[in-house]
Amino acid sequence: MGGDHGTHVTVPAALRFLDDHPDVSIVLVGMPDAIEAELKASHRTVGPRLRIQAATEVVTMDESPQSALKNKKNSSMRVAINMVKAGEAHACVSAGNTGALMATARFVLKTIKGIDRPAIAKMLPTRKNTWTCVLDLGANVDCTPQHLVQFAIMGAMLVSATQQKSRPQVGLLNIGEEEIKGNEVVKEAAELLRQSNLNFYGNVEGNDIYSGVVDVIACDGFTGNVALKTSEGLAKMIAEQLREEFQRNWWSMALAGLAWPVLSRFKKRVDPRRYNGASLLGLNGIVVKSHGGADRMGFYWALKQAVNEASAGVTQRIAEQVQQELALLGAMPVAAAAASDSQIS
Amino acid sequence: MGGDHGTHVTVPAALRFLDDHPDVSIVLVGMPDAIEAELKASHRTVGPRLRIQAATEVVTMDESPQSALKNKKNSSMRVAINMVKAGEAHACVSAGNTGALMATARFVLKTIKGIDRPAIAKMLPTRKNTWTCVLDLGANVDCTPQHLVQFAIMGAMLVSATQQKSRPQVGLLNIGEEEIKGNEVVKEAAELLRQSNLNFYGNVEGNDIYSGVVDVIACDGFTGNVALKTSEGLAKMIAEQLREEFQRNWWSMALAGLAWPVLSRFKKRVDPRRYNGASLLGLNGIVVKSHGGADRMGFYWALKQAVNEASAGVTQRIAEQVQQELALLGAMPVAAAAASDSQIS
Repeated sequence: MGGDHGTHVTVPAALRFLDDHPDVSIVLVGMPDAIEAELKASHRTVGPRLRIQAATEVVTMDESPQSALKNKKNSSMRVAINMVKAGEAHACVSAGNTGALMATARFVLKTIKGIDRPAIAKMLPTRKNTWTCVLDLGANVDCTPQHLVQFAIMGAMLVSATQQKSRPQVGLLNIGEEEIKGNEVVKEAAELLRQSNLNFYGNVEGNDIYSGVVDVIACDGFTGNVALKTSEGLAKMIAEQLREEFQRNWWSMALAGLAWPVLSRFKKRVDPRRYNGASLLGLNGIVVKSHGGADRMGFYWALKQAVNEASAGVTQRIAEQVQQELALLGAMPVAAAAASDSQIS
Repeated sequence: MGGDHGTHVTVPAALRFLDDHPDVSIVLVGMPDAIEAELKASHRTVGPRLRIQAATEVVTMDESPQSALKNKKNSSMRVAINMVKAGEAHACVSAGNTGALMATARFVLKTIKGIDRPAIAKMLPTRKNTWTCVLDLGANVDCTPQHLVQFAIMGAMLVSATQQKSRPQVGLLNIGEEEIKGNEVVKEAAELLRQSNLNFYGNVEGNDIYSGVVDVIACDGFTGNVALKTSEGLAKMIAEQLREEFQRNWWSMALAGLAWPVLSRFKKRVDPRRYNGASLLGLNGIVVKSHGGADRMGFYWALKQAVNEASAGVTQRIAEQVQQELALLGAMPVAAAAASDSQIS
C-alpha cells in the first residue's frame, strides 16, 4: 500500500515479477478493494501463486514509528511482517514509511541474537562492475564501535550469501587524509575488526563506495545516509547537465538521436532503479524497503532483492556468523553509554 | 613546493594567473633552485609582480602536522603563512599536506576571536548553476552544536563576500527521513541557528549539496569529508561509464567524434578542476588549499579563489559577523566535554 504511488506501482510490479519467476508466490497485503482494482486493471485474478491478505489500515508516509506501532496494529506492513514471523512468507517488501517499517519489523521479528540494532543496507554499483554493500544507511544515527562491527558482519553475510563470495572484503568508512584518522568510534571499530574473523581490508574513504576496492563498507547511519543522498543528488545533476547539453540546439539534438543506442546503454548502467531495494538486516526475517518514489521497474528490483536474500538464507548466515564472532571477540560488550539509542527504536 | 607535482604545476599556473590578472602580484615561496628551474623552463624571470621568497625545507605529503610544526620552521608553507601574518601577502595558496597546512596556519595566524576551530570549505556546483559552500570538509571530526553554528557563520560570510549575496541561505546537513531527525548535536545546532541572525533555511539532506536550495551547508568534518569524497568517486565512475559506452565499437566512437562539441561542453561543466581550491576559514588571514593532485588549471582556480577572498575581505567579514552572533547568542559557550578536540590541532 505504501510509497508515493501505492498499489498502482506495487501490484503491477508484483504481477510482472510473478511472470518472470515461476518459482515465486506472492501475497499482496493491504486494502482488498485497492488491490482488486489494480488486478482488474491488469486483467488478472488471484490464483495458486497469487493471493490477497487483507489489512484494514495503512501507515501513512509521514506517520511516526511510535504511532504506527501503537495505533496501526492491522496495517498492511504489520500484517505482512506478521506473516514473515509466522513463517507464512519468506520475506516482506514494502515501499512505505521507512521508520515505521523498521520499528514494526524490529518489534515483531526481533533482532538476531548478538545483534543490538538492525541496519539498512544497500548494494551500490562500482567502477569494476561489481557491487559494494553499504550499511548503515540511516537506521542508527549514533553508533558504538561494536555496532559498526555488527554492521560489518551483517554486510559480509549478505554479500557472501547473495553474491557467492566466500570471504567478502570489508572496509570501514573513514576520512583518509593522512593526518586525520577519524573519530574514536571508528578507530576502536577498526581495532575490533582486525581481531575478527572477517576479511577486513581497513579504512576506506567515500570514493571507495564506487571504486570496488571492497565488497562491504560499514559506517554509522548518519554518514551512510548523507553519502547515499549526496550520490543521488550528484547523479541527478550530472544527468540533467548531459541532457541539457544534448538539447542545446538542433545539431546536438540530432546527435542525441543518432547516439541514442549509446546514451541509452549508458543510462541503463547508471539507472538507480536497478539498485532499488534496501535490506533491513539483523532481524529474524527478511524485510526489504523499496524507495518510496520507485516506479514499477524499481519495485520489481526490490522484490528481486528479497527473493535473492530468502533463497540464500541470509538471516541464518548472519545468525551463525554473529555467534562465531561473539565467541571470538568475547561477547563484545556494547558501550551503551557512548551512544544514545536509535531514534526509531 | 607541495602537491603531487610540486613546482611543475604551481609555477606555470602562477605565471598564467599573473598574465590573466594584471592587478595581482605573486610571491613564489620555496626552494629557489626548483623555482628558478621552472621559471627558466617557461622562459620567464622575476620582476615587479613576481618574486621568489626562499624557504629551506619542504613539508612532505605524509608528514604529521606535529612534525611539520616542530621540525620544519623554515618550510615553504610556514614561510608563506608567515608572510600573510606579517601583512606581506594577502593570501597563501598551497597544494601541500592538508593537516600540516591547517596546523601551521592555525598556529601562526590564530583563529578569529569567537571561532574555536577553523574549518575547510569548498564551493560545489548545483543543478541551478549556482554554488553551495559546504563546510567543514575534514578539519574537525567531532563537533559541538556551537562549532556547527560557527561553520555556518563562516560559510555565510564567504558566500556573501565572494558571491555578492547579502543574505545567503544556510542549511544544516541532516538525514531527512521524517522519522529520523539526526543526532543531538545537529538538533541543538538547528535550535541555535534559528536564534541567530543568519538566514537559516533549516535541515537539508545530502542531495541538497547539488540541488541549489541553499547557499551554505554546515556539517561536521567527518560527514563533510565523506560527502565530498563520495561525490568524487561517483563522478569518476559516471565519467568512465560514459566513456566506455562511447568507445564500445567503431560506430559509437564515430558518434563520439561527431558529438565532441557537446561532450566537451558537458565535460567542462562537470570538470572538478573548476571547483579546486578549498578555503581554510576562521583564521586571521586567507589560506587556500589546492587538491594535491591538481594540475595547472586546477591550481589556477585555487589561486583565483584566494584572490576572490582577499578582494572581498572575507576574514574581516567573518570577524564582524561572529561578534554580532556572539552578542546575540550569549557568547555560545563551547561544550568542550561533548566533543574531543580536533586531531590536527
